[in-house]
Amino acid sequence: MHKSKILIAASVILGMTSATAVQAEDRFASKFGPEDQIGAANNLSADTTLAASKLISTGKVYSLGMVISRETPAFAPRGVAVTVFSPSQSGNKTIGSNSGTYNDDMFTGWLGVGTQIDGLGHLGDHHTYYNNNHAEDFVLATGLTKLGIENVPPMATRGVLLDIAAIKGTDRLEGGYVISLDDVMKAQKAAGTEIRKGDVVLFHTGWLDLVGKDDGLYGRIEPGVGLEAAAWLADKGVVAVGADTWGLEAVPHEDPDAFFPVHVKLLAENGVYILENIVTRDLAADGAHEFLFVLGQAKLKGAVQMIINPVAVR
Amino acid sequence: MHKSKILIAASVILGMTSATAVQAEDRFASKFGPEDQIGAANNLSADTTLAASKLISTGKVYSLGMVISRETPAFAPRGVAVTVFSPSQSGNKTIGSNSGTYNDDMFTGWLGVGTQIDGLGHLGDHHTYYNNNHAEDFVLATGLTKLGIENVPPMATRGVLLDIAAIKGTDRLEGGYVISLDDVMKAQKAAGTEIRKGDVVLFHTGWLDLVGKDDGLYGRIEPGVGLEAAAWLADKGVVAVGADTWGLEAVPHEDPDAFFPVHVKLLAENGVYILENIVTRDLAADGAHEFLFVLGQAKLKGAVQMIINPVAVR
Amino acid sequence: MHKSKILIAASVILGMTSATAVQAEDRFASKFGPEDQIGAANNLSADTTLAASKLISTGKVYSLGMVISRETPAFAPRGVAVTVFSPSQSGNKTIGSNSGTYNDDMFTGWLGVGTQIDGLGHLGDHHTYYNNNHAEDFVLATGLTKLGIENVPPMATRGVLLDIAAIKGTDRLEGGYVISLDDVMKAQKAAGTEIRKGDVVLFHTGWLDLVGKDDGLYGRIEPGVGLEAAAWLADKGVVAVGADTWGLEAVPHEDPDAFFPVHVKLLAENGVYILENIVTRDLAADGAHEFLFVLGQAKLKGAVQMIINPVAVR
Amino acid sequence: MHKSKILIAASVILGMTSATAVQAEDRFASKFGPEDQIGAANNLSADTTLAASKLISTGKVYSLGMVISRETPAFAPRGVAVTVFSPSQSGNKTIGSNSGTYNDDMFTGWLGVGTQIDGLGHLGDHHTYYNNNHAEDFVLATGLTKLGIENVPPMATRGVLLDIAAIKGTDRLEGGYVISLDDVMKAQKAAGTEIRKGDVVLFHTGWLDLVGKDDGLYGRIEPGVGLEAAAWLADKGVVAVGADTWGLEAVPHEDPDAFFPVHVKLLAENGVYILENIVTRDLAADGAHEFLFVLGQAKLKGAVQMIINPVAVR
Repeated sequence: MHKSKILIAASVILGMTSATAVQAEDRFASKFGPEDQIGAANNLSADTTLAASKLISTGKVYSLGMVISRETPAFAPRGVAVTVFSPSQSGNKTIGSNSGTYNDDMFTGWLGVGTQIDGLGHLGDHHTYYNNNHAEDFVLATGLTKLGIENVPPMATRGVLLDIAAIKGTDRLEGGYVISLDDVMKAQKAAGTEIRKGDVVLFHTGWLDLVGKDDGLYGRIEPGVGLEAAAWLADKGVVAVGADTWGLEAVPHEDPDAFFPVHVKLLAENGVYILENIVTRDLAADGAHEFLFVLGQAKLKGAVQMIINPVAVR
Repeated sequence: MHKSKILIAASVILGMTSATAVQAEDRFASKFGPEDQIGAANNLSADTTLAASKLISTGKVYSLGMVISRETPAFAPRGVAVTVFSPSQSGNKTIGSNSGTYNDDMFTGWLGVGTQIDGLGHLGDHHTYYNNNHAEDFVLATGLTKLGIENVPPMATRGVLLDIAAIKGTDRLEGGYVISLDDVMKAQKAAGTEIRKGDVVLFHTGWLDLVGKDDGLYGRIEPGVGLEAAAWLADKGVVAVGADTWGLEAVPHEDPDAFFPVHVKLLAENGVYILENIVTRDLAADGAHEFLFVLGQAKLKGAVQMIINPVAVR
Repeated sequence: MHKSKILIAASVILGMTSATAVQAEDRFASKFGPEDQIGAANNLSADTTLAASKLISTGKVYSLGMVISRETPAFAPRGVAVTVFSPSQSGNKTIGSNSGTYNDDMFTGWLGVGTQIDGLGHLGDHHTYYNNNHAEDFVLATGLTKLGIENVPPMATRGVLLDIAAIKGTDRLEGGYVISLDDVMKAQKAAGTEIRKGDVVLFHTGWLDLVGKDDGLYGRIEPGVGLEAAAWLADKGVVAVGADTWGLEAVPHEDPDAFFPVHVKLLAENGVYILENIVTRDLAADGAHEFLFVLGQAKLKGAVQMIINPVAVR
Repeated sequence: MHKSKILIAASVILGMTSATAVQAEDRFASKFGPEDQIGAANNLSADTTLAASKLISTGKVYSLGMVISRETPAFAPRGVAVTVFSPSQSGNKTIGSNSGTYNDDMFTGWLGVGTQIDGLGHLGDHHTYYNNNHAEDFVLATGLTKLGIENVPPMATRGVLLDIAAIKGTDRLEGGYVISLDDVMKAQKAAGTEIRKGDVVLFHTGWLDLVGKDDGLYGRIEPGVGLEAAAWLADKGVVAVGADTWGLEAVPHEDPDAFFPVHVKLLAENGVYILENIVTRDLAADGAHEFLFVLGQAKLKGAVQMIINPVAVR
């Protein structure tokens, strides 16, 4: 039996209402129906893709993924290791009449490292996730049986950069700074556009510049999107929200006792994907506020999240 | 003692020319200079990207990556495993005042599984790789110090589908079938276009339909691009060549004693990337011969290859 | 809050007794005190070690561990892979003036594969483990903070082989056969000894002979120690109970609806270690019923179980 | 082109003798015959085991393995990670009528970390290993096909502690200190015994005490067994040589240009196993110079080395 069910049962017995549990049941239902697994990706459409393609005017391409290595700071205890070798070619062995040789590589580590997409099964509360999926019903050791990253369709849609650092007149926001709805309003005005359904919204904070300079500070705190702004973005119908920070939202959180409340708001409550450690540097430097955003994440079955390298074209 | 040692050194001692070794030195030099690490990706340009973006007329988006799991057939001993769990939440533990919960995932396995890009450090001969990089100079256990996958710039360029199965009037080419230059000519004519510098060329053979139906047959042999066609494509300046097969080239090879000679031709000799297990099915079904092809592979430092999910937009 | 605590709270509120939860609290307390982490290993002593050493009369040594590979059948989704390579020696590179070369190896997989010891944090019920340790208090993703395998002291004590196959006049017991207390009595009589405090008791069933012959049958069911026999052994003060089966106890279980009840009985309730896939074949063939049993498992901090190779000397 | 290729082949072509290559061929032949894979383990016998068992007079048991974790210093890029979780029990799920729960663990990392045994396929020169096995003939990515750790029989034999720190009147030898044959003579005299065929010899240097205090110093250099002492031990017929250091031999080496020459001497030339990071502390504190040494390493097929926890009983 679920804890949440027990809570509910207890409240029923005692004639009380378990506000938290009931709220979860309500909050996490998908507006796209009980079978929905992709959330705000339902807001993608051929029309928005076609419209976004019209934004391409120079052909300049941006790599929005960071280079990831053993040294990349990550949420503990996450880490990665790539190991490269030349299988069965020890001792100068070559293969075939052309003396062929080759290298291969193994990856051992966590998928939530560096530039990444959080799938809808990543974070919730009371073991309940997007569309009221309870952990016990879809979280297997061999992979998620629902909400797995393989379900997320490719995103080829309008990307909008909100340069909050610029709005605040700084190169780098302070750790813990909570991006307000007012900040979002000012930034979209500065961008000369308005957030629309189907958009992917990327925040530039300057925080990623700390990587390799002060990894400790980088990982300990961060500026980030506040709850009010997140709710507003979700209401607009955005598909994903990203930033050049490791966890999108302000750390410490607005409510310092909560556990990643903006994640819960976006992922579980609204089915909006989160993109972390996005390299917004070059877009910000170019003043590129609108572009075609393309993301095709590797489709590992049942994975919760994925290391990615989204592409912006303008 | 090793045969190759004797063969190569003998030529030096006796004042002869080691044809094989010298040929390798010549063949593998980059025309983009001794510092070049990205090969045919140098043929990407803002102009070709801009031109490719004009191909988008419907906004339809294609996911060209397959779903990858423990069951995915792969070149032995390659395999993958994703493991999902709820870190430190055993026993119904939740986190914070909002009873937050989350799932994370680990990946243990090989990067050359399923839909993948072969980097330029993947395959060569005589332990020599693209731009005359010798294995001993760049292959470390902790990753390639040159030619690593993190160097490959995003591809946002024209994709061209060559539907060889259609040309040959079949749903699936036979295993071992060698795609000839004539086949390419006919297919591009059928596509109503010509291969150009900066293109990514994808071959549809129908072979991928065997996955899940007859994995043994799928992995044992395959139809594929022949040496003549590969050389022609490289001369045209294509950035990458892909197919809906596990190894791009015909297996058994044209020269059954050689070790992946088309890989050597494309990767080592010409710096042209190889894309494997590409899901061309939907493109072929739609008769989609030209499209914007976008690939941003995760930038794991020093990795040889990468699991990918390219995106086509038309 | 723990589910069990909630159950208890509910019962308090309603004036009822949660039999299950309370029973767990009672059953799993250590008789060695609230700080105890090693359970029946407290029954080891210099005296029993010294006495066991006197059993050595021939100097014959037995390896009780099986060879473990990718092919070894294991409880799903467990598996192992060893990968061997010559780090950074690609292309015939050697190291130093002596042209040194070396091979290294990686292990990616689960520790509960093949011949293994189950630590006291492996299995319990209601998320409660030996000595009333609740999962939320000691199970971290980075390892157990209590009951980790590194705490288990080396066992150098008397081993006793109970050849149940011989007692039953067969080479291999049937899958599902439940070893009764009567079987144990007969087997120890045949062995010419009596089980004592500090012993490690190994059951020979012949089941391990199926590995490599019929892995499917091997892993689907098994003969094993029954609850009554397990309780009796625990009462005697044995340190560990092992067998030549993958899970020690009968599968299907005596109570087919329960989850490994003998594991709960031994590990959680009595702190008695479980040894699985023990190669008893040679001991049985030699009629070796008493011997010095020595086990020093690798001390990976926080690990739950460990792949082992115990040694018998007689 | 590779220097070694030219050097070796030149001798063949010109009718000269390649001193290096020929020396390797001679040095690495097993005196136990061309099929031999276990080297000095051939010196184990029931007689030496029986004799060693007579050394047990108190029943005191020593764990000679260190606790190993992510923090354990290791030869770069080696490292380990244990990950613990409760498979498919997210959200308070329990299993069966008894509400069973369990924890499992994965290991991702290198086997040459912490207390370990080096198998005979670990280190050689010119890609040649014990008994003239060439890398190309037995080193596969999926494991060694010869000299794998699974072949090493259990060691239950006399252990002799040589307390060199005591001989030199210090708690810890200096990094780089080369243990001489004279040191060995003095230490065995102090131990009141003589090294014999079939022994496992353990050196106490005090160096392991640096772990956790100064890991940097610990891993950068170390005191260790010199070539002369190693050769003498091999001649005596010892099965294995160990120490409380990460690499057994002095670092920097006696010949600073060579690559682990004592490893080559012991492993490749003499088939003598190497035991590293042995916890000799308690033996030294007790003045325990002779004891029954028991090692059963996990038998992972094709592995090069293994994390171990040998047991001493006296």
